[in-house]
Amino acid sequence: MEPTESVRVRARDGDSDLERDDVLAVEEPLAIQVRSDGGAPLLAFVTTMRTPGADEELAAGLLFAEGVLGDPADLKGLERPANPRMGPELKANALVATLSAAAYERAAKLQRGTVMGSACGVCGKTSIDNVIPAGRPPLSSRIRVTPETLEALPARLRERQSIFARTGGLHAAGLFSAEGLLRESREDIGRHNATDKLIGAFLLRRELPLSSGILMASGRTGFEIVQKAFAAGIPIVASVSAPSSLAVALAETAGMTLIGFLRGSRFNVYTHPARVARPGG
Amino acid sequence: MEPTESVRVRARDGDSDLERDDVLAVEEPLAIQVRSDGGAPLLAFVTTMRTPGADEELAAGLLFAEGVLGDPADLKGLERPANPRMGPELKANALVATLSAAAYERAAKLQRGTVMGSACGVCGKTSIDNVIPAGRPPLSSRIRVTPETLEALPARLRERQSIFARTGGLHAAGLFSAEGLLRESREDIGRHNATDKLIGAFLLRRELPLSSGILMASGRTGFEIVQKAFAAGIPIVASVSAPSSLAVALAETAGMTLIGFLRGSRFNVYTHPARVARPGG
Repeated sequence: MEPTESVRVRARDGDSDLERDDVLAVEEPLAIQVRSDGGAPLLAFVTTMRTPGADEELAAGLLFAEGVLGDPADLKGLERPANPRMGPELKANALVATLSAAAYERAAKLQRGTVMGSACGVCGKTSIDNVIPAGRPPLSSRIRVTPETLEALPARLRERQSIFARTGGLHAAGLFSAEGLLRESREDIGRHNATDKLIGAFLLRRELPLSSGILMASGRTGFEIVQKAFAAGIPIVASVSAPSSLAVALAETAGMTLIGFLRGSRFNVYTHPARVARPGG
Repeated sequence: MEPTESVRVRARDGDSDLERDDVLAVEEPLAIQVRSDGGAPLLAFVTTMRTPGADEELAAGLLFAEGVLGDPADLKGLERPANPRMGPELKANALVATLSAAAYERAAKLQRGTVMGSACGVCGKTSIDNVIPAGRPPLSSRIRVTPETLEALPARLRERQSIFARTGGLHAAGLFSAEGLLRESREDIGRHNATDKLIGAFLLRRELPLSSGILMASGRTGFEIVQKAFAAGIPIVASVSAPSSLAVALAETAGMTLIGFLRGSRFNVYTHPARVARPGG
């Protein structure tokens, strides 16, 4: 399945009004099913709306963010469904994750059989009390960045977005080193999906936690983005836009440095500013 | 609960680096519980991350968009929980909807006990097949708008956004008449919530369907926004940004006019262009 699709549109521009082709970002559901390597029954875990591409990374990142994968070793395999009655289109919109017995148990508990919107990030928690994770130690990474490094991140993320992202206005998430080098970036119609794909890519390479990384995600920073970064051990989260109150509260509790309104030579540090060098320092 | 919150930030601007106050948009969970007027047990229906304010409209709009309310009369009441053991803060983050027996049954079927992200719109559908609604007749509204009317909408929606929305970059949704008059607008940290609040406001006033209305929502138009507008009978959906492939597919099937990239004197009509007058026509 392609990440973009061409359609005919009626385009108005001042006095001109004519038909032409336009390119759309594809939005399709991805159904994630789970089974256990011990032979437990196939379970519909969740369906999320996403832009096709990096589906395995998305599934791995989402299972990790939801707490199903306590460890990358809990994920034994990721395959398209074998069901011979499913046509190719349905198969392209589904993935089966083979899990350890313990991870399968956690998935069964969380199992919702629901469709999530493309920006849905905290689905699956059963009450308000579960929204802020308790009992997990805050991040203690001693990574330190300079203001100049931070200020270069937005342009570096944009450079790497492919053409379809620029035309379609897709969301992007990038992981940078403390020196400001872009290690990986991912795009999706849902900004939470872009972050799940990104973290899933490192999970599949067994490179978590990302304790010397900087996450930069497009759009505002809501609670869920900080939660995903916390799960992946990322100590610094930056955005060109505003964080929410709950994002700031979680970053404070989680020992994370949260940066917003990163534009030109300006930015705000909302929490744990010691990781950002003072001018001349 | 207030929609904004003040925090101290470390603000960098070129060579200046100092502490100052900053205003954040509040993001808090809203737990929606349902009970029946026949005395069926209280059920946790869903928890959504939202900006406090217009909570009753959000709950009504979400229950309607999810198909729990077949008719506004299915909603018998909306109140804060009576539980004496809940503190004021928890009560401010919860609402109890009293439903007809039939609506309660539908809620119980959909019941997920999950937390939705602030942009989650299609949670609760059990399979890919349910993503595109079957058996509902397409909208046949004969509303007609001029290009000039459409071109004036973005500025009119922005004018009505309150200061906290401009500073915090909140999402907005507005309902306009065919003549381009703004009837109502709502804001939220989640763009799907803004649309739910808007449609919920009309539902509570028994003014659905909105068959002569134009919905304008900030951000890209994903599948879920079109789905919500379809449920409310709104024949025209417009945005300053791009629609997704699935949004275009649903609008085509649903008989809805979908407009994107509405900027200055330019826009694209993706589906059912007959409702938009030709220049000079």
